[in-house]
Amino acid sequence: MTNSHKPSAQAEHPLTLIPGPVEFTDEVLAAMATPSQSHVSPQFVEVFGDALALLRQLFFNTDKSAQGFAIAGAGTLGWDFVAANLIEPGEEALVLHTGYFADSFAECITTYGGKVTQLKAPIGDVVPLEDVESALMQKKFKLVTITHVDTSTGVLSDIKTLSALIRKVSPETLVIVDGVCSVGVEEIRFDDWDLDLVLTAPQKAIGVPAGLSIFIASGRAIDVFKTRKSPPTSYYASFAKWLPIMQNYEAKKPSYFSTPPVQNIHALLASLKQILSVPLEDRFAAHARMSDRIKSTIASYGLKQVAIREGYQAHGMTAVYLPEGVTLPELLPRIAKRGIVLAGGLHKAIATKYFRIGHMGVSVTDDDRHDFDKALAAIKESFGEAGYIC
Amino acid sequence: MTNSHKPSAQAEHPLTLIPGPVEFTDEVLAAMATPSQSHVSPQFVEVFGDALALLRQLFFNTDKSAQGFAIAGAGTLGWDFVAANLIEPGEEALVLHTGYFADSFAECITTYGGKVTQLKAPIGDVVPLEDVESALMQKKFKLVTITHVDTSTGVLSDIKTLSALIRKVSPETLVIVDGVCSVGVEEIRFDDWDLDLVLTAPQKAIGVPAGLSIFIASGRAIDVFKTRKSPPTSYYASFAKWLPIMQNYEAKKPSYFSTPPVQNIHALLASLKQILSVPLEDRFAAHARMSDRIKSTIASYGLKQVAIREGYQAHGMTAVYLPEGVTLPELLPRIAKRGIVLAGGLHKAIATKYFRIGHMGVSVTDDDRHDFDKALAAIKESFGEAGYIC
Repeated sequence: MTNSHKPSAQAEHPLTLIPGPVEFTDEVLAAMATPSQSHVSPQFVEVFGDALALLRQLFFNTDKSAQGFAIAGAGTLGWDFVAANLIEPGEEALVLHTGYFADSFAECITTYGGKVTQLKAPIGDVVPLEDVESALMQKKFKLVTITHVDTSTGVLSDIKTLSALIRKVSPETLVIVDGVCSVGVEEIRFDDWDLDLVLTAPQKAIGVPAGLSIFIASGRAIDVFKTRKSPPTSYYASFAKWLPIMQNYEAKKPSYFSTPPVQNIHALLASLKQILSVPLEDRFAAHARMSDRIKSTIASYGLKQVAIREGYQAHGMTAVYLPEGVTLPELLPRIAKRGIVLAGGLHKAIATKYFRIGHMGVSVTDDDRHDFDKALAAIKESFGEAGYIC
Repeated sequence: MTNSHKPSAQAEHPLTLIPGPVEFTDEVLAAMATPSQSHVSPQFVEVFGDALALLRQLFFNTDKSAQGFAIAGAGTLGWDFVAANLIEPGEEALVLHTGYFADSFAECITTYGGKVTQLKAPIGDVVPLEDVESALMQKKFKLVTITHVDTSTGVLSDIKTLSALIRKVSPETLVIVDGVCSVGVEEIRFDDWDLDLVLTAPQKAIGVPAGLSIFIASGRAIDVFKTRKSPPTSYYASFAKWLPIMQNYEAKKPSYFSTPPVQNIHALLASLKQILSVPLEDRFAAHARMSDRIKSTIASYGLKQVAIREGYQAHGMTAVYLPEGVTLPELLPRIAKRGIVLAGGLHKAIATKYFRIGHMGVSVTDDDRHDFDKALAAIKESFGEAGYIC
């Protein structure tokens, strides 16, 4: 873990302990302030190339037929990349629904002409494997999407088992993982688990300010793209445009389609270097320990998680139901007054009934910050003020 | 002008004097390093709302039926917003071609199903008004696109006259301006000139690192969107998603579709405050003076511009043909050795035959920097070393 004993260079600010954006390290913020550089300068080509190479490590990827991408945009844009490149109008997609974000991904696929079947789990739960298997046997799906961690519920999907199942029942179906709230905190073995595309955003467990769409695509996914019958249905979110650009930058050759966000890429490299300075297994274990601590403390307060099934709970966030008689406006401002920013609910069906804690990145890995000592104390005191004694 | 007498806080670095990214002010870079903030926190909502309000001023916009947008992405993404929202599959677009970027915009429109007619000017020139008029009379176009400044040629289009012509001949046709290399340096009176959408990127005359798609859409354009027969053909680049978000943030209400790039928006606000601290007319005049100086110096060196027609030459960049016997690899590395980064050619037909100088932003407005004294001297000396005596 990063046991930084330096005082932070950052101005005093409320601690942002939501499921992204998370707190950033001084080094990452300094990289965001990199003086201007040409996007085709040798200096920047070096930085971008290194960032793309390190990105593979975050996914335990060594198979060079896969390719990492980092493009100006947002996690959301990753859905457009999938929908505009890996499925053609009229083809079928199976969306496994564990919260708010599956509905959005499904809508995105529909926008580009894909036909979506959703398998919806009850709120807080995952879709049973047998339901996935029977759906796969009824129809040929071009791809299946899985939200690794649904930020609206904190439900963690078992992408390893799901991928194995999909590969067994429907070998050609692409396995697409929405890893927005999982990459950098949950184990993802891209090659070993035979995944086809994992998309994410920087402002969660990667610890970089929002502004990038980050994803890795398998050789199989790239082949599916290359053998499309129709051209990609997006211009900006087109593999045809970006694949050669990413390949070139990773080979340390300048290349141009659209000006990359130079400073955000510097910040990505800075954070990847910090993340990969310790074995990823240690990073995951530190997040798991913190998650256990937060979840058991919450339970000791008599509060229940939205994610109901043990083993299917995210390690980078916790969604917590409010107790009877306490509302979000009675709780969150009191916590904010104590310098801690938590998030309200996001899942439409229960949005006013729960709150969310993000526990990812430097707030977890830098023990000296004591961010969650402060946060858990603030939660307890604020509940007390609101009339609920933890 | 900003006559900053403070020494820069930035690390020593080569001067980036290309047609974007440009040099940034210390204040803008400091804003890029803003500590983490929730994207729905009152602090950030305030910043985003202020940035959207100031953005209107950059376009002399007071008509509230128009709306400004600032979205994680790139200038290129602005084309997708146009093509996915303002034209429906099968409808006609007229693209006025003054360089490389019109071909790309045309390809983007085609990607989303629009039918494109291009009017191509000879390299370095603009399309004659009578050609535009006769094209408009032959067919009903849903929209016309004009590249205000084509970064590949330095040709400046007369968008005021073109807009008036379009409005006269074909009143319902939307007037779309690609202002990537013009917003912040060329006059754009959005309301008075009756424009419908101007798109741009931050890393040019707005003086903010790359990472945003910025545009303003007229009430007419928004109505055209709202009365579409078919839904928008992009998910991320959808007015349906972003229009309410931008309206909410500008009204200082938090709102969520996709996490905005908090730090880039802080930087946008910081730069807009600096830009708008002097009358825009003064800013344009300063850029015009610098442009005149550079263009006349270049002429005194016996060199010719790519943009051949007086009055149709950009004020924020100059594209310069190499003299007989000097190649880019003989010139640009020599200039780089003197600490100045210029750009090579971009227009495919002549890419190896010219170079480009960007003169936008703080390098122009801060007299104390003397960036172009250094650059012009470096150009002269480097040509000398390459065997061409200026």
